[in-house]
Amino acid sequence: MAMAVYTEVSDDDLRSFVAQYDLGAVVSCKGIAEGVENSNYLLVTETGPFILTLYEKRVDPADLPFFLGLMEHLSARGVTCPLPVRGRDGEALRSLCGRPAVIVTFLAGMWPRRIQPEHCAALGEGLARLHLAGADFPLRRANALSLDGWRTLHDATHGRADAVKPGLAAALTAELAELERRWPADLPCGVIHADLFPDNVFFRDGALSGLIDFYFACNDILAYDVAVCLNAWCFEADGSFNVTKARLMLASYMKVRPLSAAELEALPLLARGSALRFLLTRLYDWLNTPAGALVKRKDPLEYLHKLRFHQQVRGIGEYGLTLPAGAA
Amino acid sequence: MAMAVYTEVSDDDLRSFVAQYDLGAVVSCKGIAEGVENSNYLLVTETGPFILTLYEKRVDPADLPFFLGLMEHLSARGVTCPLPVRGRDGEALRSLCGRPAVIVTFLAGMWPRRIQPEHCAALGEGLARLHLAGADFPLRRANALSLDGWRTLHDATHGRADAVKPGLAAALTAELAELERRWPADLPCGVIHADLFPDNVFFRDGALSGLIDFYFACNDILAYDVAVCLNAWCFEADGSFNVTKARLMLASYMKVRPLSAAELEALPLLARGSALRFLLTRLYDWLNTPAGALVKRKDPLEYLHKLRFHQQVRGIGEYGLTLPAGAA
Repeated sequence: MAMAVYTEVSDDDLRSFVAQYDLGAVVSCKGIAEGVENSNYLLVTETGPFILTLYEKRVDPADLPFFLGLMEHLSARGVTCPLPVRGRDGEALRSLCGRPAVIVTFLAGMWPRRIQPEHCAALGEGLARLHLAGADFPLRRANALSLDGWRTLHDATHGRADAVKPGLAAALTAELAELERRWPADLPCGVIHADLFPDNVFFRDGALSGLIDFYFACNDILAYDVAVCLNAWCFEADGSFNVTKARLMLASYMKVRPLSAAELEALPLLARGSALRFLLTRLYDWLNTPAGALVKRKDPLEYLHKLRFHQQVRGIGEYGLTLPAGAA
Repeated sequence: MAMAVYTEVSDDDLRSFVAQYDLGAVVSCKGIAEGVENSNYLLVTETGPFILTLYEKRVDPADLPFFLGLMEHLSARGVTCPLPVRGRDGEALRSLCGRPAVIVTFLAGMWPRRIQPEHCAALGEGLARLHLAGADFPLRRANALSLDGWRTLHDATHGRADAVKPGLAAALTAELAELERRWPADLPCGVIHADLFPDNVFFRDGALSGLIDFYFACNDILAYDVAVCLNAWCFEADGSFNVTKARLMLASYMKVRPLSAAELEALPLLARGSALRFLLTRLYDWLNTPAGALVKRKDPLEYLHKLRFHQQVRGIGEYGLTLPAGAA
């Protein structure tokens, strides 16, 4: 389990901070073991529980209006996600302990530790609703972790990749070259979550109750978000691909937002891109995380295995679907 | 900041567990970054917030009836501390994920990050009230971290102590020998907390609102608990001893439970014992914590410095008090 609380907030600083809101006095504030990029606290005030987030150095403050605006936009359209709370001055984003900081609403639910097929079905529907709700969001943010970002990470890890696994450097070079050559240019784009792993999806009584952690959200190919979820939700711990989960996820998605033949056909390539993205970021973190750090490093090779799987996929039948008649 | 969540509880396991209580359904459960010895979760159910604790291997299950019974005993006598919640079967202690587990009540308040003199005054009073309230607690638990335990830790660290600081091994040997020779045998005993550091004491609106983490509680010399607090609360970050904080703490304690001349006279020696105790446990952890562990190791040498301070104390005047007339 990854965890991180980086910033120690003093009781005095917290009291002054919360006094800028109409939330009543602070009752309790505890660092929570969720979220690797930021410091998160469960803040209880006289009016209830909230999440206090301090943005650490991995989040660019210039991106915060996009992230916070998106959460407000999605909440207003019925997608349950943390809603930034505005202070008496009307501002949601302010500063605490020298860091950008926000208070957001507390979401009921727990992320699923053991993924069941029903979770994947609910996820597919929720992802499609997110894509539809984001369609008229006016702000723009490029995906910093698409082809250009992968090239940067590739170059930054190339010299030491073989220390993690012999042959890894060459495999990454070849895969990136092929993705650069074949990456689709004409697929429908919009706001994507880009990091919708199980720990970012809450369920309550078996139903999806909320989505969190929009700090990789950006504008990119919508079906790429589906591919991220295929990788994050449909592999078992032993590395096997669960085609039942994939079929349920895709079918549920398509009931809300049908995927075109072109999107379906591109899915194996998009899944390779998604696998490469997490392989590269995990590899970079693996090579650059100090041994004594309070963050548990995630295994990059899990994503090499997923990449290999998608490389050998010859059609979306292997994801449990059949191409519509007339498609290639 | 030390932190730890060791056990990952699945949503299914948690639901079955909570169903044994009259607490309503689970709304949320988040690992919290407090408590090094156990896995702690902030559990929100339909009836409110609670703390779920899973006892990891450093806690002996045979000691749990003492700890849980003590919290019930103290709560019933007006000492605000977590109260174990009993299930429908009347039991507070049960099992989750193969570990002993309890749900306790949630305490309002935050532990003070910057210790002010007023905190020390409130702490002194609270500690004395704890000692009085524990007087008729019927269970007994020996202090595993008194002279015998120090000898064990001394022997387990002796060979490598000089790697942490040259000369440390000999200093520890000499100090332990002197404490074994001079440790008092006739001082008033009772239930002590034995680990009442600032992160175990909650304040709200400037007033002490609760004490937590009774997992070192035991029967021992009451004034030894005072000595633990002198070390934990009255030194500044630069190593200097704040005599104002010490005087306020001792004077407030004595308003509730007067210290005899013999107790006061023993205080410097008890403070040396307390300093040695934390020096030895931190040294042991320092030498035995894997580099990649999710627990931040605490600096043992902070307590060598405190030990040196108390070694040169010639009387409790240096703690801000004067001995009553007629005392030695």
